[in-house]
Amino acid sequence: MKKLQTFVSILALASAASIAQSAEWKPLPGKAPEPADNPTTPAKVKLGKILFLDPRLSSTGTVSCNSCHNVMAGGEDNRPVAAGVHGKTGGRSAPTVWNSAFNSVQFWDGRAKSLEDQARGPVTNPIEMGMKSWDDVVARLKQIPEYPQLFKAAFGNDAEITEDNAVKAIAAYERTLITPNSPYDKYVKGNKTALNDQQVKGMQTFAEVGCINCHSGPAFNGPELPEGQGFFMKFPTFDNPYFEGKYKFKDDMGRYEVTKKEEDKHMFKVPTLRNVALTAPYFHNGAVKTLDEAVKVMAKLQLNKDLSKQQIDDIVAFLNALSGPFPKQEMPRLPATPGKTFNYVK
Amino acid sequence: MKKLQTFVSILALASAASIAQSAEWKPLPGKAPEPADNPTTPAKVKLGKILFLDPRLSSTGTVSCNSCHNVMAGGEDNRPVAAGVHGKTGGRSAPTVWNSAFNSVQFWDGRAKSLEDQARGPVTNPIEMGMKSWDDVVARLKQIPEYPQLFKAAFGNDAEITEDNAVKAIAAYERTLITPNSPYDKYVKGNKTALNDQQVKGMQTFAEVGCINCHSGPAFNGPELPEGQGFFMKFPTFDNPYFEGKYKFKDDMGRYEVTKKEEDKHMFKVPTLRNVALTAPYFHNGAVKTLDEAVKVMAKLQLNKDLSKQQIDDIVAFLNALSGPFPKQEMPRLPATPGKTFNYVK
Repeated sequence: MKKLQTFVSILALASAASIAQSAEWKPLPGKAPEPADNPTTPAKVKLGKILFLDPRLSSTGTVSCNSCHNVMAGGEDNRPVAAGVHGKTGGRSAPTVWNSAFNSVQFWDGRAKSLEDQARGPVTNPIEMGMKSWDDVVARLKQIPEYPQLFKAAFGNDAEITEDNAVKAIAAYERTLITPNSPYDKYVKGNKTALNDQQVKGMQTFAEVGCINCHSGPAFNGPELPEGQGFFMKFPTFDNPYFEGKYKFKDDMGRYEVTKKEEDKHMFKVPTLRNVALTAPYFHNGAVKTLDEAVKVMAKLQLNKDLSKQQIDDIVAFLNALSGPFPKQEMPRLPATPGKTFNYVK
Repeated sequence: MKKLQTFVSILALASAASIAQSAEWKPLPGKAPEPADNPTTPAKVKLGKILFLDPRLSSTGTVSCNSCHNVMAGGEDNRPVAAGVHGKTGGRSAPTVWNSAFNSVQFWDGRAKSLEDQARGPVTNPIEMGMKSWDDVVARLKQIPEYPQLFKAAFGNDAEITEDNAVKAIAAYERTLITPNSPYDKYVKGNKTALNDQQVKGMQTFAEVGCINCHSGPAFNGPELPEGQGFFMKFPTFDNPYFEGKYKFKDDMGRYEVTKKEEDKHMFKVPTLRNVALTAPYFHNGAVKTLDEAVKVMAKLQLNKDLSKQQIDDIVAFLNALSGPFPKQEMPRLPATPGKTFNYVK
């Protein structure tokens, strides 16, 4: 009997391994795609990192991009919804900045067609960074002695501090925030010990159950599409009064809020599953606290399937193999304004 | 005439140089003093840096020590008063963490006798990091899988996650946040080109006017005293209705708020002037926006002297020579809680 079990489990692993070797499974590229008009250069990345971590891009001087997209953690804040200036909160959970370079559109509703466009938003959002306008941001940056030369180093000697250059630099930095060497990547590149048995089984379950229908591609966020195209799915696809009562997913109309088109109701960008184990709580409204519950909810609402505890555990084990490793980063020095500061909003 | 001017200015510089060579001027030690019961070790510093940057030490998950004591900048937040959880603000300006290891007491009112004791405060302060108790902090840290081993690495295999160990680690990290190689330090160690002429003149003016009476010692925060002793001065010493009307310094009773002793009214810890050019706005209430105004106000309120524009400019030039350089630091990875997070206060 023991022999038979061993034999069966070897068969199962062999089958999982063959799924794992199919063309479906792609490792993350070692370099993020970059637009023709904003090649990733070291000087731009340096400037972008400083801007990303500089709280002076907020009205109060307290909120940086990093406050809600923490690069020292899973690239977000592990809160249901983010907290901006004065502790204000909105309705959506901050998506991870890690591997966001592999999304063809940005934000839960895909309203930004590029990382550059995404970076424009939060700075002047009254509940996020609260600046009145990008003109105000630019005026502030111009008063910080080191910034003009950082912009020139990044964009050429004639370059000025502008909104466009600022968001380009931030996007260039974000394109370096990628995690191409996860256990999963090592596994699909041929290192068969990079995943444990349960993770391989979870990988198989992930495919068989149908998670991979949407969470496909190297970033598990759908097919590789040109920047700006977007890959959206309706969430929830299947009505479920129990989960809806508990989590209120449908309070948010998703992409409809932007386009006002009927067909965009409850449509959301399919988010990357890279580092998903590090980004609880889950979903656009951060209503689900744990990854196992998130897997259960997804299977029910998107595939109309009731997963067993074992299936959920296996998928979660697999999803944990999509975490990190994170590149080492030096802390930037934020340029100083010797002897003075700004009149921040109180 | 031109010759005479040159001669006079050479004389002035010679005199400044001789003041600069006197025993009064001490460079910052290359290592901060450390208490016998908390030697600074790499494992403790590593843990302390992680804790310092971890926003999970706040009720909302949004505020870390670094939020108000930004080590990527001047070691504070460049705001009049700091902003804690929910954007709450208090009455005092965040002091710099840089070189705080050279203060014999901590906080504006000196209520903490050590860095360890200081670190206990903000975490449970309702307008700072807002945790209900250190028991709650410890309980939270215990749920983060990597923390137990980080504490063991820092404090020994039998060590637990405790408040005492957490504040020891944070203090150990803070003892590495020192800037002993400023232009001033290089100058007093013999590199006579490290300061420019105006800075040397400002150094002389700083001494002659009397700033150095209180801002003495290698950290310009008074004599080197044993940990816990404290060096306090009354501020303002001289009444001045104009400045008081403008800046409301006396609304804060200083050390009296802690001791309730008559003699402690308006007594404040003499703060370090290291990196003072990077820590605007100034004074305990952050009411003064620029360093030149701060120098003017100090001379009037503490020494009853009206400085000339030239004297102020020279002193400010000298104070700028007390900035940095800052050690390069790697960003820590914050330990993860795979698949879950905390129930942060909304």
